[in-house]
Amino acid sequence: MKYIEGGVCAAQGFTASGIHCGIRKNRDKRDLALIVSQKRAAAAAVYTQNLVKGAPLLVTKENLADGYASAIICNSGNANTCNANGVEIAREMCALTAARLGVSAADIIVASTGVIGQHLDISPIAAGMDALAAGLSRNVVPAAEAILTTDTKMKSVAVEFDLGGKTSRLGGIAKGSGMIHPNMATMLVFLTTDAAISPAMLQKALSSDVKTSFNRVSVDGDTSTNDMCCILANGMAGNAEIAAEGADYEAFCAALNAVTTALCRQIARDGEGATKLIECSLTGAKTQAAADSVSKAVICSSLVKAAMFGADANWGRVLCAIGYSGADVDVHKVDVAFRSAAGRVAVCKNGAGVPFSEAEAKKVLLEEEVTIEVDLNDGDCASLAWGCDLTYDYVKINGDYRT
Amino acid sequence: MKYIEGGVCAAQGFTASGIHCGIRKNRDKRDLALIVSQKRAAAAAVYTQNLVKGAPLLVTKENLADGYASAIICNSGNANTCNANGVEIAREMCALTAARLGVSAADIIVASTGVIGQHLDISPIAAGMDALAAGLSRNVVPAAEAILTTDTKMKSVAVEFDLGGKTSRLGGIAKGSGMIHPNMATMLVFLTTDAAISPAMLQKALSSDVKTSFNRVSVDGDTSTNDMCCILANGMAGNAEIAAEGADYEAFCAALNAVTTALCRQIARDGEGATKLIECSLTGAKTQAAADSVSKAVICSSLVKAAMFGADANWGRVLCAIGYSGADVDVHKVDVAFRSAAGRVAVCKNGAGVPFSEAEAKKVLLEEEVTIEVDLNDGDCASLAWGCDLTYDYVKINGDYRT
Repeated sequence: MKYIEGGVCAAQGFTASGIHCGIRKNRDKRDLALIVSQKRAAAAAVYTQNLVKGAPLLVTKENLADGYASAIICNSGNANTCNANGVEIAREMCALTAARLGVSAADIIVASTGVIGQHLDISPIAAGMDALAAGLSRNVVPAAEAILTTDTKMKSVAVEFDLGGKTSRLGGIAKGSGMIHPNMATMLVFLTTDAAISPAMLQKALSSDVKTSFNRVSVDGDTSTNDMCCILANGMAGNAEIAAEGADYEAFCAALNAVTTALCRQIARDGEGATKLIECSLTGAKTQAAADSVSKAVICSSLVKAAMFGADANWGRVLCAIGYSGADVDVHKVDVAFRSAAGRVAVCKNGAGVPFSEAEAKKVLLEEEVTIEVDLNDGDCASLAWGCDLTYDYVKINGDYRT
Repeated sequence: MKYIEGGVCAAQGFTASGIHCGIRKNRDKRDLALIVSQKRAAAAAVYTQNLVKGAPLLVTKENLADGYASAIICNSGNANTCNANGVEIAREMCALTAARLGVSAADIIVASTGVIGQHLDISPIAAGMDALAAGLSRNVVPAAEAILTTDTKMKSVAVEFDLGGKTSRLGGIAKGSGMIHPNMATMLVFLTTDAAISPAMLQKALSSDVKTSFNRVSVDGDTSTNDMCCILANGMAGNAEIAAEGADYEAFCAALNAVTTALCRQIARDGEGATKLIECSLTGAKTQAAADSVSKAVICSSLVKAAMFGADANWGRVLCAIGYSGADVDVHKVDVAFRSAAGRVAVCKNGAGVPFSEAEAKKVLLEEEVTIEVDLNDGDCASLAWGCDLTYDYVKINGDYRT
């Protein structure tokens, strides 16, 4: 397996496009994306567990009931959530896309991201559909940009891997970057692959993957109403269809995890206002549930996040978060260290502080990617979680987002 | 019942003192407080549920096992938590205090607040004990100031009430203002009363009260390692001892709740970096648990908090928080309004937006105390929760707290 360029356009038979159609006021910001598979593809998705669900998610769920889809339409600038006519508008987006592509409206995945509770006007989308379709190409950038909101960077990754002697590709694009605390689902992520795999196995692979990838990310603890992660698999790699567990399924899952994990890191690194990626590497837990709770509590703590912004080795806040994580932990066994490209500094052993150089710790914490190593020394379970620091800019971005 | 001055010195037989002994570097900040009852008093306390517990809490729990105490000693500037010799130091604080007051060391409540994981030197405390005891008076200010950390204002309140024909008083002081997300306990709160009440009924009243008072406050979602709320009742009001439920117990609980609720509002209003108090007034829930979960989720949401800082009527974030609160809510029945001294603006009806004046909403949200009214329209249970906005200053205060 190797990383390649191309994101959702890396796999054979996939093209994408992105334009500014007028949903967002800023004409320099694209706001409508389209991803198309040349062949009708097996499709799977996971959705937010927030009880308030964006209308596009309800419509996508209906459309994916048969396990197949041909295209993804997504707008930014408006979440189409908490609107009385939301479902109707989402269905219109599917109908317009289907008509332009000559496919069934029931084969369209629809997504929206942006402000909640404002009417989504269909007219700029209808007016932009021709230009959107005309722009379809193997260049992933316009689509990857068109799904962004407060993100500062596009998020795109792809891998190439062997599948029973055939070369297959799997890639994705994603948007962050606030209201990020996925629960059994994810932020908006679109994945494509030319692997042949049955809808059932595709869903199984995706549902299993998100538990160790997107569900391990948090920017601000707020689980979005519009989280969705979907994948299209069009089979154009020519491999024997994966219809059961086995070596091919394992290879597929490994490729999937390489892509999703890379997107997780890109999303956390570009969290609203973030200056750095914070990873918690948790080892020595008695149970997997404890490992997951503790690592997530550490990267979610506002106080830990603010300390990381200040490059302050305030490990007491890490211990505090471990203590309220809800996991059954023997706090007298806990070791903590900070690690980055600049080195590693142990700060706590058996639940109590150990002498360390503040200057050396500062150097470690000033890096753009910092790992908080926590060893519970109480078992064999491990977990990773990704977040970011809490900064002035997070407050600035969210203090006046709508106006 | 009426509000009176005096805080923990309002009740008969209580004096207090506060000095700078040298734990904190800034000589203008007091760092050692003492509260003394003239008579050995019935005593009760609740403690943090964080598994990482400050050493002073462990020692206080031992000392309160018999239900009585005479004095409270508390330092700021160091939490005496995650230190190998923490329990030993906390016991020394009790012994020094007891020796100076001529009481038993087992009748001392000890508390510490400040940085976690740094050795607490006993010598400035020992050296300051004479001055501390010499300063005992009916003036609550020095003690109320000495327990503060990043707080900008002292927190103090008291009430006078009738207890079976006798006038009784109950008052308290508290410290905030970060790492505030109490779980079946609270931040540091010291309460005193001259009511006569048995240790068992005192504990019952306190344990019951915190569920609707301190456990409904959040500044940053981080449950502290050193949370504690304790109360001393010395019986000097001369009422017949409250030893069972009844009218006197009800009067006592009402007075207690008036004091604790006022302290909650003071703590939330002075949350780290806060510019305003945010109250969520939740009605129409099917169950009390749902009411509590939803109101707490709303005031804990970083996105809601940042919107309040920006005086932005972004009610979609309120709906989002309701949706991920974990409570079983019919989101299509939810109404939301913003209310303050400047007026009231309804923004959401039956889960969807209603037209409102942005200018009017801005006026409402620019006030220093804002109530977010949420009606689930699905039952009879209600709940209040208190928090604050998320500001640049929260990040500033916590980006470099230790150094």
